[in-house]
Amino acid sequence: MDANAAMIPVFDRGFIFGDGIYEVMAQINGRFFYREAHINRLKWCLEQIHIDVDVDELEQQIPALLDASDLSGKDCLLYMQVTRGVAPRQHSYPNNIQPTVMMYAWPKTLPDINEDHASVVTLEDFRWSRCDIKMTSLLGNVMANEHAKKNHSYETLFIRNGLITEASHCNVFFVKDDIVYTHPTGPFILDGITRIVVLELCDKLGIGVRQEGVPAAEITNMDEAFLTGTSTQVLAIKEVNGAACFENVPGPVTRILQEAFLKLKRSL
Amino acid sequence: MDANAAMIPVFDRGFIFGDGIYEVMAQINGRFFYREAHINRLKWCLEQIHIDVDVDELEQQIPALLDASDLSGKDCLLYMQVTRGVAPRQHSYPNNIQPTVMMYAWPKTLPDINEDHASVVTLEDFRWSRCDIKMTSLLGNVMANEHAKKNHSYETLFIRNGLITEASHCNVFFVKDDIVYTHPTGPFILDGITRIVVLELCDKLGIGVRQEGVPAAEITNMDEAFLTGTSTQVLAIKEVNGAACFENVPGPVTRILQEAFLKLKRSL
Repeated sequence: MDANAAMIPVFDRGFIFGDGIYEVMAQINGRFFYREAHINRLKWCLEQIHIDVDVDELEQQIPALLDASDLSGKDCLLYMQVTRGVAPRQHSYPNNIQPTVMMYAWPKTLPDINEDHASVVTLEDFRWSRCDIKMTSLLGNVMANEHAKKNHSYETLFIRNGLITEASHCNVFFVKDDIVYTHPTGPFILDGITRIVVLELCDKLGIGVRQEGVPAAEITNMDEAFLTGTSTQVLAIKEVNGAACFENVPGPVTRILQEAFLKLKRSL
Repeated sequence: MDANAAMIPVFDRGFIFGDGIYEVMAQINGRFFYREAHINRLKWCLEQIHIDVDVDELEQQIPALLDASDLSGKDCLLYMQVTRGVAPRQHSYPNNIQPTVMMYAWPKTLPDINEDHASVVTLEDFRWSRCDIKMTSLLGNVMANEHAKKNHSYETLFIRNGLITEASHCNVFFVKDDIVYTHPTGPFILDGITRIVVLELCDKLGIGVRQEGVPAAEITNMDEAFLTGTSTQVLAIKEVNGAACFENVPGPVTRILQEAFLKLKRSL
């Protein structure tokens, strides 16, 4: 159906409680990039909050959606959301509730390489401690993203326990002396698919990696920084908190990874 | 309209991002209990997340809702939710977006005194650091409430920095040597209306109060404990983590407050 005509009941727990999980995938050259990783993350997240839905069956409906959207084989983004379903409002939920599923796709051709240079700001991480769950209770992320926008920046980098964890809808990497740094997985970051891909590329290219959080106070001592995300891809960071921090943007390691990422996209 | 037939567009940011605020009020003896405090909290929360809506106008529509629900003057609960509105999905939001408002009411006569005895469990607080905002991004609270249910308990008490803060949808108080303890307001708790009422009653009755978080390790040394909330009212706690902790349930101070709360309800 027409996405703009699609409605859900007000008592959907997605509306009342933000009780849902979502996923975004990019179709590139006729295939969803790292489709299995996205689908597996969706399954894992749904398990974490005990929503029982047949994701494989959901996945089988993607071709029909693309066909109806005139996007079969075309470059596009696909959004999938599963909420716990409709029930009278109370925090705990009934057994055997029927989950609500919403999917839509829209045409989007990602650039070969994201040639933008991002400004970012930093902010103490005030979100919850289960950022590994890709949930729809996103008000904290919305507030952080709005904070970036108000500061004429693309993203907000979160600081937790003095370390940079991730951004409002991206992961973040730093480079120092040809070593790539990024916060380890765990409850404080989303295990981003593009993050995984970049770490695989580093391994393949023989670039050293330390999965360690960079102290916020050390950002200005880094050589390079970049963001990753499904639609952001690999995006060089230019400014942090209004100051130009890095000599070359993109830095040489960032550039190597952007080019390797492009090559990977073309090869799949 | 029939609440069960009410629908919202899937692109409502309440559904996609949990980007909304809610409020619940109880009509008792023909009047909404502490109506102004609820309305002011709704206004304050909406300001915190920069949703611009005319709450006074919204309030003026309550009589029509009650009339249509055949609840004018009758004991009931009223739920109000304001979300940022409908927009194409991205974290940051457009200016001049039209907020979505949803209100419904259902018959509910609260008992004079809540004579239940609650079992509670404790859990490290994994929610965000703006628990003072009564938002609809409630997955953390849902998970905590479900944790209570799985442990055959009514509520989960959160522990942050070693101190008991609040519960998944209630505030929590302890009594030791006739002094009432509860966590101070601030970013780690919701400033509950019933919490405010209980503190006013303590003041009126000459009961000593310390707004200090009780260390989780000290719970078993407390004399009494109780929960507060709009529909929970003042509820004595019987067990914590499966153990009976308190000699008398309700304890004498809890009982005095329950009776004073009843008297207040009857006087308004």
